Amino acid sequence: MPADDHHLLERRYRIMGRNAPLFYDKPVHLVRGEGVWLYDADGKRYLDVYNNVPCVGHCHPQVVEALARQAETLNIHTRYLHEGIVNYAERLCATFAPSLDAAMFTCTGTEANELALRMARYVTGGTGIIVSDFSYHGNSETLAALTTCSPTPEPLPAFARQIQIPDPYRDRQGRSDEELARVFASQVEQAVRSMQADGIRPAALLIDTLFANEGLPDRVPGYVEQAVRIVREAGGLFICDEVQAGFARTGDAMWGHQLTDAVPDIVTLGKPMGNGHPVAGLVAARAHVDAFGGAANYFNTFGGNPVSAAVASAVLDVIETEDLAANCRNVGAYVRSGLDQLKARHPVVGNVRSQGLFFGLDLVNDDAQNSPAPDKAKRLINLMRDRGVLISRIGRHDNILKMRPPLVFSKENADVLLTTLDDALAAL
Amino acid sequence: MPADDHHLLERRYRIMGRNAPLFYDKPVHLVRGEGVWLYDADGKRYLDVYNNVPCVGHCHPQVVEALARQAETLNIHTRYLHEGIVNYAERLCATFAPSLDAAMFTCTGTEANELALRMARYVTGGTGIIVSDFSYHGNSETLAALTTCSPTPEPLPAFARQIQIPDPYRDRQGRSDEELARVFASQVEQAVRSMQADGIRPAALLIDTLFANEGLPDRVPGYVEQAVRIVREAGGLFICDEVQAGFARTGDAMWGHQLTDAVPDIVTLGKPMGNGHPVAGLVAARAHVDAFGGAANYFNTFGGNPVSAAVASAVLDVIETEDLAANCRNVGAYVRSGLDQLKARHPVVGNVRSQGLFFGLDLVNDDAQNSPAPDKAKRLINLMRDRGVLISRIGRHDNILKMRPPLVFSKENADVLLTTLDDALAAL
Repeated sequence: MPADDHHLLERRYRIMGRNAPLFYDKPVHLVRGEGVWLYDADGKRYLDVYNNVPCVGHCHPQVVEALARQAETLNIHTRYLHEGIVNYAERLCATFAPSLDAAMFTCTGTEANELALRMARYVTGGTGIIVSDFSYHGNSETLAALTTCSPTPEPLPAFARQIQIPDPYRDRQGRSDEELARVFASQVEQAVRSMQADGIRPAALLIDTLFANEGLPDRVPGYVEQAVRIVREAGGLFICDEVQAGFARTGDAMWGHQLTDAVPDIVTLGKPMGNGHPVAGLVAARAHVDAFGGAANYFNTFGGNPVSAAVASAVLDVIETEDLAANCRNVGAYVRSGLDQLKARHPVVGNVRSQGLFFGLDLVNDDAQNSPAPDKAKRLINLMRDRGVLISRIGRHDNILKMRPPLVFSKENADVLLTTLDDALAAL
Repeated sequence: MPADDHHLLERRYRIMGRNAPLFYDKPVHLVRGEGVWLYDADGKRYLDVYNNVPCVGHCHPQVVEALARQAETLNIHTRYLHEGIVNYAERLCATFAPSLDAAMFTCTGTEANELALRMARYVTGGTGIIVSDFSYHGNSETLAALTTCSPTPEPLPAFARQIQIPDPYRDRQGRSDEELARVFASQVEQAVRSMQADGIRPAALLIDTLFANEGLPDRVPGYVEQAVRIVREAGGLFICDEVQAGFARTGDAMWGHQLTDAVPDIVTLGKPMGNGHPVAGLVAARAHVDAFGGAANYFNTFGGNPVSAAVASAVLDVIETEDLAANCRNVGAYVRSGLDQLKARHPVVGNVRSQGLFFGLDLVNDDAQNSPAPDKAKRLINLMRDRGVLISRIGRHDNILKMRPPLVFSKENADVLLTTLDDALAAL
């Protein structure tokens, strides 16, 4: 690490604490971003295969222009009328099923999930929340208590239950998709019954239907639909967290849940919504929004301001005009095929999973059980960093490479990723 | 209301719900802002005497320039190294007492208060929170449960206790400041004892030392210091919410708590920090930040990104180079003197309270008790709106005019405010 970076790191430790999260054994000191590229203080460039937030590419000129133009015109909260947020809300809701016809705005995915939980509890009269056993939905008190993907998870609060998400690679045990869906959905049934036994009424099932934190397991047809039906029959709502999955990344749909037949009651949005600008929110049935709004008098100072609306709108513009969904499909398929070839050559790659421009490689040890290899995953992402490609890892065993580039990722970029990955896997 | 505005309002009701808060009987449809002025769709201009968020003035060119320049260069989370946030954190901490020597960043005041509560609970091992009986600290599940200034307050959760804040205008009853401080601080003692009786360990006293939501009562010397001492003796921390009071508004100090002798354990920051850009955070002892960070692995995706750091830094630049603290003092004193004169002429003004560029007028009925006059306050802010001046109201009885203009408010602006207020009071 250069001396200047070391000095900056020491200053950072002192003023932001020792434990503010940092990537890599040698942290990367960034100074500039453009498209899929990031540049460090020494002018070295890195291919960004990690960051989903700058979904239309780092510093996209159209988004920056919209931000600057609106910021110099007006930036104010929503207790005054402004066209921008109404236009955006209409446009956003039009991308969902007709039953999801109203929007509320926040600044972060945490705030969106907090709002969704409050709304679900108000609407259902229940308090019980079901989450997956390896999930993260935000950093507030309530959402931290629901976080199950922590290295040191606390016991869940009394109102919560966790369910395991099927991962065909490790959980199939000879079972068909139908059996897998049924067996794992039965955990939702058990969760509901366990709540009811404790006098807790279910308020919501809160999941990301791509199961990104869980390691992006191959989807088991029918599983989400069954889980949702069970929760609804018990009076709860289905909150779909699209903070990671949303905004066309899957290639096949604008929203992750649209790859299933389950229509959520509330959808929460965040990270990519403003390409890095703090804008987030939820979409739900207007009846829920009206009922909750009347009771709770919810207000969010920065949420839905004209600048956020302009930025979020520009992001949708770029996704449409550059047809990024098609890019996710095409380049996604290209990368997938390359990853499958890497798997054939490198036994450490136990499993490849992907959905559009979201990829996971399950790294395994050379044993009969294909046991998870978190140490190798850690080493590999640092090898990749040294070779100028930024990725990370995820999953219950922290052994799944997480690759989730900006949606403007090209086949040329893919070649860089695949070649570098091949090299790093060989160097493991 | 113009037909276009009516149509926009109907569209807004449909897509954002009936209950998304709006100011005024006839909502104002804004399209542009500059300094202390806001412009509606018909070109009518309004003097902004309400908004503290655009603290250095609407669309300040220096802030917009910093935003645009950084947004076109790099916008990324803090898991990579970046100089901007380290520079800002150092500069921010330097404005506090030496014991407040580390910073963490979020996007909103809600997130900052959530983080502060989590930190206080972790550090103290307690769960109990004491808030004032007419306060608001955010819109999350936990903070909503602590909200006491709602029109329909819910019963407080088991871990919380509320205390009444002394308002010399209504609570003095012939008592000296010393007696007032002692009597009201004894409520803190009772709150602590009541918690302890229920087996709850106090974690924090969470207050805004200006007591803005409570109606900006005249400060009672020694009260905050006594309240804090009692909480500390019981093992709790003092969290000071500077979301409204901070960033030089009081004129006499950068932070509201600096008008007292009580140094907080954690200070939370928000609204004016980015002049409208969603940036917020907290400042605390590094030992607390390190301890909590190590245990909680806290991460905030947008918090402290280079754009937020650049914007927040530009706001500090403007506060310093335009010497806005001095402006708050000078113009604040000028407005105060004018308000005192209005009080002498209009019996409906029962009490004038102010601190720098933050003013309250307690409106009263013409009776022996000076009973609160919320209806008159409501009518008055609408009369002011019709006359081109934006203010609001606050306080336990919703009868206190709330005036809190951008810090660049001038004596000429003050004359407009005072003349218009005189006229509107006469028209009541």
